[in-house]
Amino acid sequence: MPEFFNILPPEAAIKSLLDILEPQIEAESVLTPEALGRITSSVIISNENLPAFPRSTMDGYSVRSTDTFGASEGMPAYLDVVGEVPMGRVPKITISTGQAVTAYTGGMLADGSDAVVMIENTHTVNETTIEVVRPVAPGENVVQIGEDVQVGDVVLASGHSIRPQDIGGLIALGIEMISVAQRPRVTIISTGDELVSPQSNPGQGQIRDINSYTISALVESAGGIPVRIDIVGDDFDQQRKAALEGLNSGEMLIFSAGSSVSSRDMTARVIESLGKPGVLVHGISFKPGKPTIMALIDQKPVIGLPGNPVSAAVVFEMMAIPIIHALQGHTRPRWKATLQALLTRDLPSQTGRQDTVQVKLDQQNNKITADPIFGNSNLIYTMVRADGHVTIPINRGGLYANEEVMVTLY
Amino acid sequence: MPEFFNILPPEAAIKSLLDILEPQIEAESVLTPEALGRITSSVIISNENLPAFPRSTMDGYSVRSTDTFGASEGMPAYLDVVGEVPMGRVPKITISTGQAVTAYTGGMLADGSDAVVMIENTHTVNETTIEVVRPVAPGENVVQIGEDVQVGDVVLASGHSIRPQDIGGLIALGIEMISVAQRPRVTIISTGDELVSPQSNPGQGQIRDINSYTISALVESAGGIPVRIDIVGDDFDQQRKAALEGLNSGEMLIFSAGSSVSSRDMTARVIESLGKPGVLVHGISFKPGKPTIMALIDQKPVIGLPGNPVSAAVVFEMMAIPIIHALQGHTRPRWKATLQALLTRDLPSQTGRQDTVQVKLDQQNNKITADPIFGNSNLIYTMVRADGHVTIPINRGGLYANEEVMVTLY
Repeated sequence: MPEFFNILPPEAAIKSLLDILEPQIEAESVLTPEALGRITSSVIISNENLPAFPRSTMDGYSVRSTDTFGASEGMPAYLDVVGEVPMGRVPKITISTGQAVTAYTGGMLADGSDAVVMIENTHTVNETTIEVVRPVAPGENVVQIGEDVQVGDVVLASGHSIRPQDIGGLIALGIEMISVAQRPRVTIISTGDELVSPQSNPGQGQIRDINSYTISALVESAGGIPVRIDIVGDDFDQQRKAALEGLNSGEMLIFSAGSSVSSRDMTARVIESLGKPGVLVHGISFKPGKPTIMALIDQKPVIGLPGNPVSAAVVFEMMAIPIIHALQGHTRPRWKATLQALLTRDLPSQTGRQDTVQVKLDQQNNKITADPIFGNSNLIYTMVRADGHVTIPINRGGLYANEEVMVTLY
Repeated sequence: MPEFFNILPPEAAIKSLLDILEPQIEAESVLTPEALGRITSSVIISNENLPAFPRSTMDGYSVRSTDTFGASEGMPAYLDVVGEVPMGRVPKITISTGQAVTAYTGGMLADGSDAVVMIENTHTVNETTIEVVRPVAPGENVVQIGEDVQVGDVVLASGHSIRPQDIGGLIALGIEMISVAQRPRVTIISTGDELVSPQSNPGQGQIRDINSYTISALVESAGGIPVRIDIVGDDFDQQRKAALEGLNSGEMLIFSAGSSVSSRDMTARVIESLGKPGVLVHGISFKPGKPTIMALIDQKPVIGLPGNPVSAAVVFEMMAIPIIHALQGHTRPRWKATLQALLTRDLPSQTGRQDTVQVKLDQQNNKITADPIFGNSNLIYTMVRADGHVTIPINRGGLYANEEVMVTLY
């Protein structure tokens, strides 16, 4: 198989895989308080009204609103205070015309009342009488039954990533367990005769395996379970055996191959030998990371990453994370936050190629600047020293100094 | 103690606590691959050069650069290929003038060579001879010893939050364990006679405790360890007992009190009774969340949150997360990513008060719009339905429809 037989722009490359991927999402139940970051595997519907009773939103008095109509400082309405409804209690009092009952924020109203007068709009006349100096409309300062959520409402869609407020929202409805997608196991195979484990002292010509560790952390932050296996040398049969085991025991396979052409060629041949439909993309119009492979084997995504550590991390983040999300039924986030900054120097590129450039941020006279960090993509510290990265779009021949750029923060 | 005796703007309120907080950071050792999101507790220095040997950045031939000077398509330099240096191996060959040795990306160079000619700039003449058609400078296509990191370099500062690429960078240098700040234990006390646990079926007038669950998830995402204790009723002695236990067993205390004035007053009195210096801030010029308390008791931060669930979550994120970071020696992130959007309607506010408004995002004709979600701050689903929030600065009387706003995404 020739190198780079099917080069696509990054977006098209991701799409070519996602378009034919039919994820088999296995659900599991988790306790709601432990569901942070998990992806819902079905629609969640409310069986309750929230709130379940009309609640006061103010400290004050529950009243019949008609009793306050026309009230003002000059002509207050006088009401008899006939009791209170303590927090967490059911009202024991029904009010009649001309009566009021002390109400607390979050508490119930007295039966017979339909609004709450804020304490700030009353004056105390004596122990049992108040003056109301502003009228209230029916329902004023009251949250009605079901005003937040009604029985039968969809409270969370399927494929939603659980945030802290969602946990609160579910707990509020008494939903203590939810069904979420199982975290996909992602097997990471590091190959290369030059690699040794981080525990080893590398000899001359050898280096420690960096990529499987960076990639594991990225898998974790995308909600997957990284499964790292031993380093495999540049041997076709050994690599194929490891890959088949990985495909058997997980939902996705990552090949982190060496940087040399021969090493990359072997990865491509191994992946192509695994099954159907096989390699979909071989090479992306992207720097750093042209030698990227995307494949699908019996509905399991396989990605061959470039060997250089910066390329591997950047390509993984761009190409593999949307796939790990898809395996959980999570669609790609529609919104993305960036930081606007001024580029400190010209960044030449090539039209028809998308570039990602590491940048260091600084602030000078209220202006945030993004300074490109140059360096070969096998220098991992170009990325360790970076605060984020800038993308040069595929249809631009570069970016200019002092141009406003959107920085994706790390 | 009167309500709101010391109202400060949110920024000043955080500062008033951080200025006198002297965090006692306890360090612990963790395996580097498990350190994602942890905060370094000391500077990390390299004991190695990276790379440890000159590495080729290209597939091609290691050569003496002087042999290629003046080479061109019209007048190529002819070199004898006298062997190769396989990946992960030490060169066994020393080259002389007129010789070349096959080199691989990431591999070593032959002894005696000082540059690598890319394979694309050569033609094969026969099995042992190549034509070089472009000259290389000394050091070209070679990463030198220590070009990424040198012995003695600071590779990570103290107080740095570990990212995936940092794990790779540390592993590259053989740093398998690092010293990080212990995760601070944050005790969360929910108080209020109206609260029942999520397992209960609330009666009329009662609600499930939401806030301690939302806050726990936020503590977790800020790197702390949430410690939730049983709901405590509106009883001074019980609350004080719970607070003292929390202060004893953790590094920070959160009071999530009811929303009524009496409930908040009790929280303030309990916090004031715990020790010195006591309450620093009582009330912030912020909506939703004016009744916020910030205190320091024997160098342990104590925060009294407003009772409404949206207020509690918003105030916690703004006020408490910087403190949880500080307890780990992590300074507030200097850079913040947001999404630019067009506000769909006027948002009135008050000068002298900062507002946070929940928004729903949408995209219409290439423009991203932010639509404010209105609703009382005790409606948690105003926040569940939101994609992010917009801040109305303290010195503005509001924001206008069609104004560009920066949305902080959830």
